[in-house]
Amino acid sequence: MDTDTAHKTPVTLLGLGDMGAALARTWLAAGHPLTVWNRTPSKAEPLQAYGARVAATPAEAVAASPLVIACLLDDASVEDALKDAELAGKDLVNLTTGTPGEGRARRGWAERRGARFLDGGIMAVPPMIGVPESGGYVFYSGSGALYEEHRATLSVPAGAVYAGEDAGHAALLDVALLSAMTGMFAGITHAFSLVRGEAGKEGEEGISLGEFGRLLADWLGAMSASTGEMAAQLESGDFTQGVVSNLAMMVQGNETLLRTAREQGVSTELLTPYTDLMRERLDAGHPDEGTAGTVDLLRR
Amino acid sequence: MDTDTAHKTPVTLLGLGDMGAALARTWLAAGHPLTVWNRTPSKAEPLQAYGARVAATPAEAVAASPLVIACLLDDASVEDALKDAELAGKDLVNLTTGTPGEGRARRGWAERRGARFLDGGIMAVPPMIGVPESGGYVFYSGSGALYEEHRATLSVPAGAVYAGEDAGHAALLDVALLSAMTGMFAGITHAFSLVRGEAGKEGEEGISLGEFGRLLADWLGAMSASTGEMAAQLESGDFTQGVVSNLAMMVQGNETLLRTAREQGVSTELLTPYTDLMRERLDAGHPDEGTAGTVDLLRR
Repeated sequence: MDTDTAHKTPVTLLGLGDMGAALARTWLAAGHPLTVWNRTPSKAEPLQAYGARVAATPAEAVAASPLVIACLLDDASVEDALKDAELAGKDLVNLTTGTPGEGRARRGWAERRGARFLDGGIMAVPPMIGVPESGGYVFYSGSGALYEEHRATLSVPAGAVYAGEDAGHAALLDVALLSAMTGMFAGITHAFSLVRGEAGKEGEEGISLGEFGRLLADWLGAMSASTGEMAAQLESGDFTQGVVSNLAMMVQGNETLLRTAREQGVSTELLTPYTDLMRERLDAGHPDEGTAGTVDLLRR
Repeated sequence: MDTDTAHKTPVTLLGLGDMGAALARTWLAAGHPLTVWNRTPSKAEPLQAYGARVAATPAEAVAASPLVIACLLDDASVEDALKDAELAGKDLVNLTTGTPGEGRARRGWAERRGARFLDGGIMAVPPMIGVPESGGYVFYSGSGALYEEHRATLSVPAGAVYAGEDAGHAALLDVALLSAMTGMFAGITHAFSLVRGEAGKEGEEGISLGEFGRLLADWLGAMSASTGEMAAQLESGDFTQGVVSNLAMMVQGNETLLRTAREQGVSTELLTPYTDLMRERLDAGHPDEGTAGTVDLLRR
């Protein structure tokens, strides 16, 4: 632990759930004077033992530091916690999960009260906080002046990626990555449902569930590189650019996926919406495209 | 090119689509005597220039080599192409895309005609064939004796992974990986639809589509490691084992994803089926589990 706190920015942290507590520990370990507040005070006790000052109210906590981090349940909790606090001259960084619209509205609300505002989206689970090699990071967007001034302090818990002045963009990027992960998890669930009951035990002939899991992770990791192809196609507007497997081939191949699911007694409910979307674009006369043409079909 | 063909197994290849042609070139380059047949003879001409013998009929092609590879349009094409061929004593390897049921039935059919049979599922696109560093490989299942005897020859175009005697398992594993990829592509499509129109140009302030694509690929690659957790949970039957983000947290977090999609004018159609499946398992009383409990819900 770095105990030279003379030159470290004092930090106030509102919210000590699993994520808040993980953030708090990293600032304490890095020697930042830390003031914490949590609705349930008992959660602050372990941090007090490590040197955190515990405030009785959010207003008291906000008054203690120039830099105030909120990591609360939802956007309404942020408004509620800060309703009696003096925000003028403060730098407010909101790491509470929310939508882009909430981030933009909260920036306006904070600025009307005299604070600079930065919204954040955390791309990590609590065990990855304070562990640089985990690869976790936080998207920030909003006041670039605030970000530049506090970049070093904000980089203590995890990597920091600045996404511009639009205070909605941190949440937008956060949600976009999580949405893609949700789709991947749906696919993984379907895949395990197919092989469940057919896979052998570890060490037996054939492929075990564990081996299948490793092959699946490698496969998805390799195929995730296709995001670069899609980005390039969307930027150029030419959705046939660099295509190896075109829409006609993919829709035809999908028939085998759907027939196999039916053979194995597995519901196709997780795969059919995207199959339908690809077919819609194909039927509109685009057999030679990749999948980029399905992106705008969702904006209806 | 290795021109010492004396000790190389003669190979017959039926089907010269993009994949068949790519396979053919690798066996020719490795010095295997190669006989090819294709329904449209003109596709054989470029290979003839590299030393392939072109057969006029599938029966003539089959007669030329002990090892016969089929890479045709679909399972019905395999039966049709081989209806007049003498298969007794031959080793038939079917790389035609099909379902597990088709693989099993085709093995019975081949064995009744006196051939050994191996089914294959190719985890690669044609440009990856003959390029070891591409990581492409082929699942094989069926006759282990055939596989052992011809392992070296089969490993020429791409890596070979043997998945056991059940001739359906190569197709099952192939389809399972492709199904998971389809789910991931659905998620990627939703993600790009969210950021489309908001991302800046390369070099501008904020995150460009290209940068987003790279962050997305890294994120999905990192998150794909969760397949190991799911495999371990399915093997142990304890779906709470090693859980960091539990079902209650994931379902709550999904609300933010769905609200953000509505804010951005993006349809939720690709995300809702899996959200519903998670909620079904949660409502059955499993807040502390990971996602493994959704796998068996698809088997209904």
